Amino acid sequence: MTQKILVLPGDGIGPEITAQASRILAACKARGLDIEVEEGLLGGAAYDEHGEPLPAETLEKAKAARAILLGAVGGPKWDKIEDLAKRPEKGLLGVRKQLGLFGNLRPAITYPQLASASSLKPELVAGLDIMIVRELTGGIYFGQPRGIEERDGERVGFNTYIYSESEIERIGRVAFEMAQKRGKKLCSVDKANVLEVTILWREVMERLAPEYPDVELSHMYVDNAAMQLVRAPKQFDVMVTGNMFGDILSDAAAMLTGSIGMLPSASLNESGQGMYEPCHGSAPDIAGQGIANPLATILSVAMMLRYSLDEPALAERIEAAVGQVLDDGLRTADIASEGTRTVSTAEMGDAVLAAF
Amino acid sequence: MTQKILVLPGDGIGPEITAQASRILAACKARGLDIEVEEGLLGGAAYDEHGEPLPAETLEKAKAARAILLGAVGGPKWDKIEDLAKRPEKGLLGVRKQLGLFGNLRPAITYPQLASASSLKPELVAGLDIMIVRELTGGIYFGQPRGIEERDGERVGFNTYIYSESEIERIGRVAFEMAQKRGKKLCSVDKANVLEVTILWREVMERLAPEYPDVELSHMYVDNAAMQLVRAPKQFDVMVTGNMFGDILSDAAAMLTGSIGMLPSASLNESGQGMYEPCHGSAPDIAGQGIANPLATILSVAMMLRYSLDEPALAERIEAAVGQVLDDGLRTADIASEGTRTVSTAEMGDAVLAAF
Ligand SMILES: CC(C)[C@H](C(=O)O)[C@@H](O)C(=O)O
Ligand SMILES: CC(C)[C@H](C(=O)O)[C@@H](O)C(=O)O
Repeated sequence: MTQKILVLPGDGIGPEITAQASRILAACKARGLDIEVEEGLLGGAAYDEHGEPLPAETLEKAKAARAILLGAVGGPKWDKIEDLAKRPEKGLLGVRKQLGLFGNLRPAITYPQLASASSLKPELVAGLDIMIVRELTGGIYFGQPRGIEERDGERVGFNTYIYSESEIERIGRVAFEMAQKRGKKLCSVDKANVLEVTILWREVMERLAPEYPDVELSHMYVDNAAMQLVRAPKQFDVMVTGNMFGDILSDAAAMLTGSIGMLPSASLNESGQGMYEPCHGSAPDIAGQGIANPLATILSVAMMLRYSLDEPALAERIEAAVGQVLDDGLRTADIASEGTRTVSTAEMGDAVLAAF
Repeated sequence: MTQKILVLPGDGIGPEITAQASRILAACKARGLDIEVEEGLLGGAAYDEHGEPLPAETLEKAKAARAILLGAVGGPKWDKIEDLAKRPEKGLLGVRKQLGLFGNLRPAITYPQLASASSLKPELVAGLDIMIVRELTGGIYFGQPRGIEERDGERVGFNTYIYSESEIERIGRVAFEMAQKRGKKLCSVDKANVLEVTILWREVMERLAPEYPDVELSHMYVDNAAMQLVRAPKQFDVMVTGNMFGDILSDAAAMLTGSIGMLPSASLNESGQGMYEPCHGSAPDIAGQGIANPLATILSVAMMLRYSLDEPALAERIEAAVGQVLDDGLRTADIASEGTRTVSTAEMGDAVLAAF
């Protein structure tokens, strides 16, 4: 059966990087992958056109798609929109929530060819391979009540950090299963010494552990996790945490590798429907210049093939092609270093296609 | 008038490190500083004795003191206490809250003698000097409602992230004033693209800015701040943020320096009453061995002299003495490196006293 793929270029460098990734999708199709690719508007691009970041048409297409490839959303142009609900980011959050994409997989991998790009000493990051599993449709991002209102003669702002046992269990299982497929170590990150919601989190993780006897479960407070990522990141295999802590830690971990322009991510629901996007943002400062790194987006296609389309062999071929162009010394500006050849976004796309 | 100082050794390595810092306090007194030092119980030590982490007697002493020197609280021994209110950490949070110590100052400084201890490349951290101003008596740490309860047939855990305008303004002013005394750059960290409470936070910071025209105010999302700290920490001068984000970012920043055993902190209220403590924790794994690094606690005494006792000259002398022992090549195990002499907690205390 033909599977629908929706490409959402989004804002900033989004259109440039998804253009290259779409070429890879097309190449997969040419090799027999039964997909139908269409495009849609999300984020600032959608706001400019329709006055809202997630138009009904986009949501419909998203629901009908087996997988979504997203560039990135947001930029200073839309930061002044008064109504938070209309900001580009809310389009992204809307897709996550509406499709129930609760399971966010954020790998932090150091590519051997790029280890020197890390701000950490090479020996600390060489061979780094962490998978952060972040809960993506709950927690403080979506908790009610929330708002800004007048109380006792002044305004207060408030949000609610909330998780139910079933939400925790669901993401916990994703993480335990991920650990089983990898190094069998799972570190659950919380702030159980202060926050009740994370006491429940820890309790549920503990309750699940006996069902995964081959996985070694540990717990770490979020402040310590932030430190340990800086101090000795290779101690981690799989980490699992809530939406907000996951946002912070996965970005820190990605940056540790020194090549955030290389890191893809997946956001999955229970039926394997997924959204795939680079870890980096929309980089408005370099948008339109044709110099952005398309590799994280191309590697997001590989994740899509692995997690939503059940085509692990094709996924590996894309990853191998990316490894090949790095071996060949091709670099976009963000990962350039002495002795390598700096290429444009499109040239990088050409090279991966040629190696694929 | 004689000023009261309360020393709270706490748990783990707390008693060992405060013992050395107390010798410095005594030396200050011998040189004419008009203080009266007493001790009290906090955290696990208090729980073991009185069944609660913040006994009434300790709280009374704390209120009567001009300044408090704390070692550290917590440890695995007390992690299993069912009632969160009885855990060691709650003793610490109780003192903060009861004394209104809303302004937490967390410097992240790289000592030139220790730059190579950082996990970051030396050029990225040499000369690093960031001051993180963290709000300490509000936000999600204290927000109501909070708890774990049954809803729709399952348990949910929830906490409330809440700030009022006046709370934000108060910590904002501390940060702006700090920036005025330093490099005149203030970066306010929030998640205003998602959380209403931080939209208000950003708005209040913006409102204050015109009153401090010599300070350049910028805003950064917390995920980006975590990345930028790893990528290029020297871009920051003063950072200001809420309780939870401050917990995470200040620990990450401290670890960047490579010598978290060197970093003091201050927690102040409006009248300059303050609690001073090392940034590091109670390190139960090395407690009782006489090898812990007392320098962060000794430097906390320097902060106490500067911020609560109005004795900047004495503060500088302590800091100079610490610089001297580092120059002399003395190191506790945590900061030891080739060509230096590893000393015990007490030997380090001896050396600082001798240089003072
Ligand atoms: C754009 C923003 C809403 C989003 C988030 O905070 O989840 C982004 O930072 C991410 O991590 O995907
Ligand atoms: C011990 C704990 C409650 C505390 C906090 O989270 O504030 C600590 O991590 C700190 O940063 O002082």
